[in-house]
Amino acid sequence: MAAIKPSLAKGTRDFSPAEMEKRNYIFNTLKTVFKKFGYNEIQTPSFENLSTLTGKYGDEGDKLIFKILNSGDYLSKVSDEQLTERNSNKLIPHITEKALRYDLTVPFARYVVMHQNDIALPFKRFQIQPVWRADRPQRGRYREFYQCDVDVVGSDSLLNEAEFILIYQEALQALGLKDFTIKINNRKILSGIAEIIGKPELIVDMTVAIDKLDKIGLAGVNKELLERGFTNEDLETLKPIIELQGSNEEKLSQLKTVLATSENGLKGIQEIEEVFAYVKAFAGEQILPKFVEVDITLARGLNYYTGCIFEVKTNEVAMGSIGGGGRYDDLTGMFGLKGLTGVGVSFGADRIYDVLEELNLYPESNSTNTKVLIINFDKTLESFTLPLLASLRQSGVAAELYPTAAKLKKQMSYADAKRIPYVLLIGDEEKESGLLSLKNMESGEQVKVSKEDLIAQLS
Amino acid sequence: MAAIKPSLAKGTRDFSPAEMEKRNYIFNTLKTVFKKFGYNEIQTPSFENLSTLTGKYGDEGDKLIFKILNSGDYLSKVSDEQLTERNSNKLIPHITEKALRYDLTVPFARYVVMHQNDIALPFKRFQIQPVWRADRPQRGRYREFYQCDVDVVGSDSLLNEAEFILIYQEALQALGLKDFTIKINNRKILSGIAEIIGKPELIVDMTVAIDKLDKIGLAGVNKELLERGFTNEDLETLKPIIELQGSNEEKLSQLKTVLATSENGLKGIQEIEEVFAYVKAFAGEQILPKFVEVDITLARGLNYYTGCIFEVKTNEVAMGSIGGGGRYDDLTGMFGLKGLTGVGVSFGADRIYDVLEELNLYPESNSTNTKVLIINFDKTLESFTLPLLASLRQSGVAAELYPTAAKLKKQMSYADAKRIPYVLLIGDEEKESGLLSLKNMESGEQVKVSKEDLIAQLS
Repeated sequence: MAAIKPSLAKGTRDFSPAEMEKRNYIFNTLKTVFKKFGYNEIQTPSFENLSTLTGKYGDEGDKLIFKILNSGDYLSKVSDEQLTERNSNKLIPHITEKALRYDLTVPFARYVVMHQNDIALPFKRFQIQPVWRADRPQRGRYREFYQCDVDVVGSDSLLNEAEFILIYQEALQALGLKDFTIKINNRKILSGIAEIIGKPELIVDMTVAIDKLDKIGLAGVNKELLERGFTNEDLETLKPIIELQGSNEEKLSQLKTVLATSENGLKGIQEIEEVFAYVKAFAGEQILPKFVEVDITLARGLNYYTGCIFEVKTNEVAMGSIGGGGRYDDLTGMFGLKGLTGVGVSFGADRIYDVLEELNLYPESNSTNTKVLIINFDKTLESFTLPLLASLRQSGVAAELYPTAAKLKKQMSYADAKRIPYVLLIGDEEKESGLLSLKNMESGEQVKVSKEDLIAQLS
Repeated sequence: MAAIKPSLAKGTRDFSPAEMEKRNYIFNTLKTVFKKFGYNEIQTPSFENLSTLTGKYGDEGDKLIFKILNSGDYLSKVSDEQLTERNSNKLIPHITEKALRYDLTVPFARYVVMHQNDIALPFKRFQIQPVWRADRPQRGRYREFYQCDVDVVGSDSLLNEAEFILIYQEALQALGLKDFTIKINNRKILSGIAEIIGKPELIVDMTVAIDKLDKIGLAGVNKELLERGFTNEDLETLKPIIELQGSNEEKLSQLKTVLATSENGLKGIQEIEEVFAYVKAFAGEQILPKFVEVDITLARGLNYYTGCIFEVKTNEVAMGSIGGGGRYDDLTGMFGLKGLTGVGVSFGADRIYDVLEELNLYPESNSTNTKVLIINFDKTLESFTLPLLASLRQSGVAAELYPTAAKLKKQMSYADAKRIPYVLLIGDEEKESGLLSLKNMESGEQVKVSKEDLIAQLS
């Protein structure tokens, strides 16, 4: 076997111990919050039947799904005609029947349908697993990345929406973020706007265009709206709506006037007001003005949302959205189970990772790492150091004995590289006196401690 | 989009909240032990370049690797000849360049080689991730399953081997297992045996045959040895070795006599003796006779082991091995980095899951689940129940308010199905008196408590 120089598959990453620690810190913080709100964890398989995924993400999405080649003689059932046609797309269903998970929502819908007799509704689940997309890799965009989704199906109560605002607030604060905005909109408000313009059939075109306000400005949005079939008169009607100003209350109040003739639109406003009332009853008056902003330009590409829509941005670092979600009225319809409403949000773990890195918000103390390294001066000392090592571990202290009597410098470098905070120097003198030399690797300070004091101090 | 009845891809599983809880219990228990012994977590991507994996698992293994079809027009670079030849195997490298992880060892070797300048040797890592194999699914064998590997590279000290015995002992006991056997052998002893028979070149044939002693008995092993080129005289020499009896000390002592002329064999015995000396120095005399057994029929299919070999069996349930591993002298040679020795073991999480299930060893209390459900009698009560809910969560209590004022029976079923241990019944009376009715769902007992007592009791 010839030695090859190994490399990573394009768009994928290794995670080192230091990175894993930070990632686990984020995941564990999120999980703790999710559980406090009554959400339970599920996992689904990494690959699904191709038919489960195909057609759920649009034509562009379908292309980005990684397909798994059938095992064995996968060509045996392909006709000569199919082969020589050389149509890559048409050949796919004949040589693949499985594909890697593209998001967590479709597998969750499949899960709910398949397990509908075992689950109690409302079903509150969270799911933190990798997904795979055949995107062109670029800075911050990977072909394998984790999604953290938290959803409830089978309850149309707006208490759920309110709780997602609280989940975002509590989770992001628990991670150390101080200044962030949870934007809220409602699909029914967008429908209402399209209605009063008299072009309800163009709602998707309208939302796609105004969703880009942040990026291309009003002029750009207007240009796109004209291209998509709106008139200059429509733009006049839309302008004050798109440029809505003031507090949340002021915005909602203005919208009520504008949308007075649209039942749909008023319903959307009322839903947001009810969500806000829940948040206030739960957490007082201060949360909403501080963290929540009504933003009717918020549409989010996915147009399966039917009620409230969320998106979260940090204001401390320049970064795209770090989370989003909304309500969808028919999550499981694609698998034949009609009428099950759901609402959920997700956290963008990779972006949150970068934000915490930039703001230096990871906890200083490395709780999962080895706490003390016993220097190995001589094999004959092992009859003393090994029982000590056992005692440390019995007290729950992560501890190591350097496995050979290597040079001191090498052993100290090992402690350094592994960021081990304490080193125990045990020679014949220490063995006889029972007083151990404990060195603090950060301060350089060295003290003599008894075995009992050592364990008390480190555990 | 036509509704299709969804199903799982063959050989894969969903994990429900109750199953996730049990799986996380196992993984967290293992991780705690691994960390105490100084091992850190890493993760590698789910797919690797095909060239990283091909040729590492033998021809049979190669066939079981799931290949990922190239994206886009994957046929465009395939010649007409290659297509019409209809050779599935030969076509693979032309239409796929990525494949799903087959085990954690090869990606770990790649990791070590690629990160050799960033890691401190000895590098102690654990890794708990799924792997995928295109095996025919059957009871207990899945196409997606987790491996839990813990390995150290860059240290030839037998202290590492001793610590793996201690890791097995501590982890399995922490999971509640009482009676298990950690079998140990040494590849050098097997080499020694092949040497004294005078057929060192047949060592693989010999080990493959005697590895089956448990399954096919001595007669079966002998039959296979004859077929593989051994003579009846060889069988006579082998018999007392294969049927070695007595305590570990007695076995090692007999082996010393038998292998007196084999330097290799004596080295293997000496290695086991040194491992045992470490275990005794660390944990006293009792561990070895209770949990560790020298078993020279232990070979394990993989023939890359060069030193000690381990395998673990539970004696409480009929079940194959629940773990195994050993030392390999040249882990990273396949990627061009020579001379790096490693030793590691793995835990069979799926089998351990079944063992704990059968022995009813999962902790009773469900620490990750919702602790209390507030029954929703009437929307008007929410001004009282929502702040209470907030207080409970602020004290770290996982709590829910049923999202609508549904029928009491429905809300109680929800608590039941979700195994929520307490239910709070709050009506107008409770709201006014401030004394809340707390019902224990298991005992049925119902008491009146103040808000403060409630929080103190549940947190």
